[in-house]
Amino acid sequence: MQVEVWSDVVCPWCYIGKRRLEEALARFPHADEVEVVWRAFELDPSARSAAPGDAAREPGDYARRLAAKYGTSVEQGQGMVDSMTAAAAADGVEMRFDLAVAANTLDAHQVLHLAAERGLQDAAKERLLRGYFTEGEAVGDHEVLVRLAVDAGLDADEVRAVLAEGRYVDAVRAEEAEAAALGATGVPFFVVDRRYGVAGAQPAEQLLAVLQRAWDERSPLTLVGAAAPGAGAADHACGPEGCAI
Amino acid sequence: MQVEVWSDVVCPWCYIGKRRLEEALARFPHADEVEVVWRAFELDPSARSAAPGDAAREPGDYARRLAAKYGTSVEQGQGMVDSMTAAAAADGVEMRFDLAVAANTLDAHQVLHLAAERGLQDAAKERLLRGYFTEGEAVGDHEVLVRLAVDAGLDADEVRAVLAEGRYVDAVRAEEAEAAALGATGVPFFVVDRRYGVAGAQPAEQLLAVLQRAWDERSPLTLVGAAAPGAGAADHACGPEGCAI
Repeated sequence: MQVEVWSDVVCPWCYIGKRRLEEALARFPHADEVEVVWRAFELDPSARSAAPGDAAREPGDYARRLAAKYGTSVEQGQGMVDSMTAAAAADGVEMRFDLAVAANTLDAHQVLHLAAERGLQDAAKERLLRGYFTEGEAVGDHEVLVRLAVDAGLDADEVRAVLAEGRYVDAVRAEEAEAAALGATGVPFFVVDRRYGVAGAQPAEQLLAVLQRAWDERSPLTLVGAAAPGAGAADHACGPEGCAI
Repeated sequence: MQVEVWSDVVCPWCYIGKRRLEEALARFPHADEVEVVWRAFELDPSARSAAPGDAAREPGDYARRLAAKYGTSVEQGQGMVDSMTAAAAADGVEMRFDLAVAANTLDAHQVLHLAAERGLQDAAKERLLRGYFTEGEAVGDHEVLVRLAVDAGLDADEVRAVLAEGRYVDAVRAEEAEAAALGATGVPFFVVDRRYGVAGAQPAEQLLAVLQRAWDERSPLTLVGAAAPGAGAADHACGPEGCAI
């Protein structure tokens, strides 16, 4: 069974959703037959990565940015930050918005694509989320990405080559187009076996229920007006043993 | 919308099923947005193609083969032939089992694969079915396949090259494995958008109902416990406009 999660590295609910998915999988009896794939979604493809010295690297900038985005006061922005921090803490995630450094995430998604090919995607995803949300890492910087990717087990030179070439830019864009085609307007967006979709970091309980439902209905097709699979040749059909006539 | 039909060239119900699908599509208002793909299924991968002069090319052999297969008398074999002939006639298909020449269909499926790449698959499928069932063509012979493929618009040299190289043998085998994975134990087996399966040459009425149902449910995902697609950011999600908090 496959669980694809469209997600961004700088999306707070995505980090929380990752924990909730992990909790759901920990309680799912068939977790060892579930493959989790992290797919790319950029909340803001036009985002600029803050360079060292930028205002966007100063403490408290996150609340100011929120206030500017929503047209509220900085105090109200800080209120949102506090609410999100509390929500994250309830799921065991430490969010340090006071340290967060604005970042474009296209390159982070390229790193995650490489990590998937090397069987290290979950480790890389976790490392990037923790870097951005907890440690104030500038996940838009190439050398920061290289360092975090190495922490997750990737090869530094290969990561540098991927970023220099833009090797997976098209792959990232294709995943983003797929998200749109599937009806995802926000993230996290969980897709189970391309049959069920869950929008948002729903509680582990609910993710578990979807896993169970998809598991129970694993047959990839709904057979209409015909014998169930494995029941032998249907009416008006031919099989290895001949034709029903 | 995509309709895949697993089918064999020497399968009577497949030819009838093709007519029923055509009738269903003729009555389906969105037929011009439906792509039909013919996929490979060999009823008997070990079948030997009868060479000129073989008993299997003599009139009446089909009834004898059926009798041998089912352990019945040749008269009972002929009874099955007559029933199938009558069923086919009711759908406008002329079946001349008295002319039919036993054939292995691996190469016919290779030709159909080439035809798909050239946008000529339906014409080629129809030509091969008519050749085998109505005209007594030896659809296991390379030169017969070349001639029928040319009738359908393919290039003779390219067909010869495909057959000489076995260019699509792996592709045919992959489609057959896919049929098994989807639960198809006989053919024809219709699959609509990989969501609905119909086993057997069900009546046009029923195929039409499945087309309509799949059309009405075109959204590829069942969204669970969340807002409908397009309704904006769900709870506990982040989107281009920010995070719901």
